[in-house]
Amino acid sequence: MTASPSHTLANLAARFDLQLRGDGTRVIAGVGTLQDATPEQLGFLANPHYRAQLTSTRAGAVVLRAADAETCRGDCLIAADPYVAFAKIAALFERTPVAMPGIHPSAVVAADATIAAGASIGPHCVIEAGARVDAGAVLGPHCIVGERCVVGAQSRLVARVTLVRDVLLGKRVLVHPGAVIGADGFGLAFDQDHWIKVPQLGGVRIGDDCEIGANTTIDRGALGDTVLEDDVRLDNQIQIAHNVHVGAHTAMAGCAAVAGSARIGRYCLIGGGAGIVGHISITDKVTITARSLVTHSIEQAGEYSSGTPIQDNRAWRRNAARFKHLDELARRVQQLEKEAKQ
Amino acid sequence: MTASPSHTLANLAARFDLQLRGDGTRVIAGVGTLQDATPEQLGFLANPHYRAQLTSTRAGAVVLRAADAETCRGDCLIAADPYVAFAKIAALFERTPVAMPGIHPSAVVAADATIAAGASIGPHCVIEAGARVDAGAVLGPHCIVGERCVVGAQSRLVARVTLVRDVLLGKRVLVHPGAVIGADGFGLAFDQDHWIKVPQLGGVRIGDDCEIGANTTIDRGALGDTVLEDDVRLDNQIQIAHNVHVGAHTAMAGCAAVAGSARIGRYCLIGGGAGIVGHISITDKVTITARSLVTHSIEQAGEYSSGTPIQDNRAWRRNAARFKHLDELARRVQQLEKEAKQ
Amino acid sequence: MTASPSHTLANLAARFDLQLRGDGTRVIAGVGTLQDATPEQLGFLANPHYRAQLTSTRAGAVVLRAADAETCRGDCLIAADPYVAFAKIAALFERTPVAMPGIHPSAVVAADATIAAGASIGPHCVIEAGARVDAGAVLGPHCIVGERCVVGAQSRLVARVTLVRDVLLGKRVLVHPGAVIGADGFGLAFDQDHWIKVPQLGGVRIGDDCEIGANTTIDRGALGDTVLEDDVRLDNQIQIAHNVHVGAHTAMAGCAAVAGSARIGRYCLIGGGAGIVGHISITDKVTITARSLVTHSIEQAGEYSSGTPIQDNRAWRRNAARFKHLDELARRVQQLEKEAKQ
Repeated sequence: MTASPSHTLANLAARFDLQLRGDGTRVIAGVGTLQDATPEQLGFLANPHYRAQLTSTRAGAVVLRAADAETCRGDCLIAADPYVAFAKIAALFERTPVAMPGIHPSAVVAADATIAAGASIGPHCVIEAGARVDAGAVLGPHCIVGERCVVGAQSRLVARVTLVRDVLLGKRVLVHPGAVIGADGFGLAFDQDHWIKVPQLGGVRIGDDCEIGANTTIDRGALGDTVLEDDVRLDNQIQIAHNVHVGAHTAMAGCAAVAGSARIGRYCLIGGGAGIVGHISITDKVTITARSLVTHSIEQAGEYSSGTPIQDNRAWRRNAARFKHLDELARRVQQLEKEAKQ
Repeated sequence: MTASPSHTLANLAARFDLQLRGDGTRVIAGVGTLQDATPEQLGFLANPHYRAQLTSTRAGAVVLRAADAETCRGDCLIAADPYVAFAKIAALFERTPVAMPGIHPSAVVAADATIAAGASIGPHCVIEAGARVDAGAVLGPHCIVGERCVVGAQSRLVARVTLVRDVLLGKRVLVHPGAVIGADGFGLAFDQDHWIKVPQLGGVRIGDDCEIGANTTIDRGALGDTVLEDDVRLDNQIQIAHNVHVGAHTAMAGCAAVAGSARIGRYCLIGGGAGIVGHISITDKVTITARSLVTHSIEQAGEYSSGTPIQDNRAWRRNAARFKHLDELARRVQQLEKEAKQ
Repeated sequence: MTASPSHTLANLAARFDLQLRGDGTRVIAGVGTLQDATPEQLGFLANPHYRAQLTSTRAGAVVLRAADAETCRGDCLIAADPYVAFAKIAALFERTPVAMPGIHPSAVVAADATIAAGASIGPHCVIEAGARVDAGAVLGPHCIVGERCVVGAQSRLVARVTLVRDVLLGKRVLVHPGAVIGADGFGLAFDQDHWIKVPQLGGVRIGDDCEIGANTTIDRGALGDTVLEDDVRLDNQIQIAHNVHVGAHTAMAGCAAVAGSARIGRYCLIGGGAGIVGHISITDKVTITARSLVTHSIEQAGEYSSGTPIQDNRAWRRNAARFKHLDELARRVQQLEKEAKQ
């Protein structure tokens, strides 16, 4: 463990192009929430919901918008986007484990795999035939890089990541533990009275700067590849079926699921637990709220939802029972309207 | 890597009992979609949705129904079920990794485990006491076969599969990475002010020809076993709770979940993300559409659904707000009807 | 394998403070359901649903409530809470694998990690710098204990559990295979045209007597920790996002998901597949039924639900189509009421 870093406010302001208000010589040794930050730490105000904490915070300084600076009695750094500025500053205080370049003696590496000189292969990793790990890539313990897979430069497989086969990761891709990339898609043909498996012959291509969450699964294509373009961000336990195509800069929250051959645009936001059925297409800049199910293509940018609101169980039971007869209710209203007009 | 196989159209027609129309000497070296196939590849038309591509495809030949053969200008193979025929042909072009029989030196195998002569045990596998791996079974890297588990002949655990204990896999079972079979079921008894664990004493029995997706979990029974009959097909991230019984030939799409002691019939299709509550029973040949929640037993074959349609968020908000008062709305309609009758 | 234990009814009655009715010398060699138990086994009746099986059971004896004892023709043990009593008795018959204390030679342990003398570290485990495993803790095969993690006394990581870093497990915590605790939370800031990662600097704190299911994921905090208090019970495939706080004795069924910074009270029951959005708060003793989505804070104990009932697909389609115009329907009813009053 190395000594924690520290930075003066003036230094942070210069480095991240922020406006300093207050004592530039103040030393910042960490970051925190407004509620918990100590006088040695920097807090931030991005969500107006927490504005009231500005007067009670013990933080040594706060990153905030110009409009909020008035309310701030202490030192502050003014940013056009305080959350972005805070993210960049916080990165200075991150303790990323230092990976030793080289191959751990317990790893099993195929004779014809290519491991770049600066790459780090952790304990018990398995690198199979024809695989390639590029410079600066880091594989934590228990990663499997299957046949013909490529781990791009500076990518990091945190631990216990499985790339099954024919999986290409771009540069600076971050994959969390338990993720499985390149397993067979779910392809079945029904042959009279039983299933036969449809061979899954494609691969997976993942662009630069993507992040893949813990226990997320991305299947390889049946014919052709499953594709994530650059800067796609997937949270934990997401399921991406075969031949899905996800556009650049799209982010999906935990437990979202996308069925086979669906095509999602760029800059989309897919809420937690949302579902997208197969063979449909979603245009750019679409937001799907949590747990909604998308059953047809969406051609217009905007926000979309499905579901019903949470209620006290008794009230819900009564309403849900009525839902079962909603069509009939609508017909009765039509009938009343007809009668009223006579 | 071996040379890619190739086959003449006449050879394929004879092998799979298909009707050839065109040049039987044409050599096929791979398969593809109508959209992407090259002149060396075979395409297929199963989904009428893609019929228009028949005129533009560059595929060397196409597998299709007799009715579509008219529209096909090039060579074709006529099949009663083109998707089944294509699946069988595609299997000829699959590059399944060849597993070396024998036990990798990094594997840890209990003294009293039984490994058949022809089985293949990959790097870093762990085979515990009393376990058995039958002839032709292949365990990729990082598989764990716990106490008293059996891996049937010709079964394949792709990589990093965990069989916890008392798990019996039949013949030709295929299990994808991250699957956990035989973990404790979720059994709790509330003892005045805290939980006590209900011991999970059963096992898991999985029939022949089943497929289990990546990161899917199948818990062992509390008393008695959790059972999948033959030819059950589970996609990724499915959760099967303790003492569930799934009938033969049933298929479930990704993220479906089945609660404890539910009984599902044969030839059912459970859509992606669908849920089935505990202690209920679903008869044969039931289809549950994506994301539906089954809260009571289903005694009649057919298709079942729940949920509400996806909408623009603003419209949805208004409708969802009304759902909270749907019972009251129905009562008001009743009142209007009563008044109208007077 | 050791010989199965056996106990007389009198012995069981004394040990668990139950009332014996019948032959105290009867020997019990196992437990079973009323339906399947043999004459050597003890059955139980907790759920009135199964009361009819009391007359047909072959069980040697039955644990039940006083009120049901009348109907029981054979020997029985009378308990205030038969399910709790049964759980305790069943534990006598559990065959928990005996773990050998010590470190398996294939494990990789950092020089400065602390492993208590009585702890058991299984094959291929990886224990990283600054980690600590306390007395009596058992790590099955393929567990990873990352930097600065602590596994409390008597805790058990069944197999292939990953603690990423800065994860503290209390005493007697049970974690099932595939669980990932301490992966990065999903923190992103949108910087003009691309995402930047918000560093995840916190850890995870898990209290005593918690249980974490297979393939469940619990992310570490962004700033501050993600917290599970004592006796929290999580089933399989649950997703707990960064900075969530779960109160003591709360239980969640499979596939539930909790978004960032949500706060859940004590003694809550979260149904299978239920979702809880971020930054909200749920008070003590709240039950959320299966698959419900909680979108706002809940301040009163009770049972809450959302969703619509399962129906035949045709009926559902008609009703769902009407839901899209429910607000308009309500307005039409209002109009009719207005007209009726005139």
